[in-house]
Amino acid sequence: MSKIITIGRQFGSGGRELGKRLAEAMGIGYFDREVISEIARKSGLAETYVNNFVEKRAGYYPITIGRTFYAPMTLQMDTEVYRAQTAAIRELAGRGDCVIIGRCADYILEDMHPVNLFVFSDMESRIARCRRKAPSDEHLTDNELRKKILAVDKSRAKYYEFYTGQTWGKMQHYHLCINTAGREIKALTPAVRAFVEA
Amino acid sequence: MSKIITIGRQFGSGGRELGKRLAEAMGIGYFDREVISEIARKSGLAETYVNNFVEKRAGYYPITIGRTFYAPMTLQMDTEVYRAQTAAIRELAGRGDCVIIGRCADYILEDMHPVNLFVFSDMESRIARCRRKAPSDEHLTDNELRKKILAVDKSRAKYYEFYTGQTWGKMQHYHLCINTAGREIKALTPAVRAFVEA
Repeated sequence: MSKIITIGRQFGSGGRELGKRLAEAMGIGYFDREVISEIARKSGLAETYVNNFVEKRAGYYPITIGRTFYAPMTLQMDTEVYRAQTAAIRELAGRGDCVIIGRCADYILEDMHPVNLFVFSDMESRIARCRRKAPSDEHLTDNELRKKILAVDKSRAKYYEFYTGQTWGKMQHYHLCINTAGREIKALTPAVRAFVEA
Repeated sequence: MSKIITIGRQFGSGGRELGKRLAEAMGIGYFDREVISEIARKSGLAETYVNNFVEKRAGYYPITIGRTFYAPMTLQMDTEVYRAQTAAIRELAGRGDCVIIGRCADYILEDMHPVNLFVFSDMESRIARCRRKAPSDEHLTDNELRKKILAVDKSRAKYYEFYTGQTWGKMQHYHLCINTAGREIKALTPAVRAFVEA
């Protein structure tokens, strides 16, 4: 039986690290930024544009559509990107067992019966994690980090809801929801693997 | 380090079976109905009354308080039961590692840092499970079973919220939320154990 694992995750919760470790432990593919490159290839658009779309902007149309031609044009391009994203994710998943991070993969691959995980944590742990992972020239206060974390999550939620019509991070959509607060991702990986392979 | 495991669970999701199997695999105590007996002993009230309180009635006062003296008397007795429940659960947990099912144990034992699990499933699987576990003289239709399941969950949610002020089944309160839909509880147990022991 094929094992496609999708991971939704709150920003700073360690979902990406868990995905990487899981893929490594199981000896299967891992797709994260790789999805962006694949979308860019398929759509013929620049990676920067695709990345901006996937990470930041989608789902904001009701606010940004104005009287100019700019917004509808953007909407059309973004729809194109989402279509390319769907195709890219289906193609990557079609190659065999893998872990795919974010990007509505749980919804896009529903008919392939993926195991859908959601990784979350409390704000304190997420701030601490972001601080550990931050580039050395980033000097944000706790309050700035908190704002950044909430903004990224809001953007992910909007993106997910815009394209799936479902609520991002709603327990019922997932097979396993993992709280990483105060835990080592490395130590949790075997348990998650055992769940996926059970 | 002590391992106290609390399990909140949707009715029909197999949370009780998971708890039993987990306790058995780990060789630790398992408290479910035992809590009721302990409360009855501590409060001097009949087990039937205690059970009725814990399983069915708590949190319904705003509806039942009327002009008679009956309701305030009940409220007083129920507060007594809840106090006895708190004492009983703390005493049982104090004896050593164990699994405790429901009864606000996650909240009551917060200072003992329990591992809090929540077990849930989709309605179809829960109906199927209830049917398998039902006494042979129970003949409910799917619709009747669905109503029963929703009623029990509503009661659990009200009970939990009345005494803890928190939302029952809200992902953020738990360390691991496990969807049992289409899965064998027996097969999932080692993964949950690995998570608890990680």
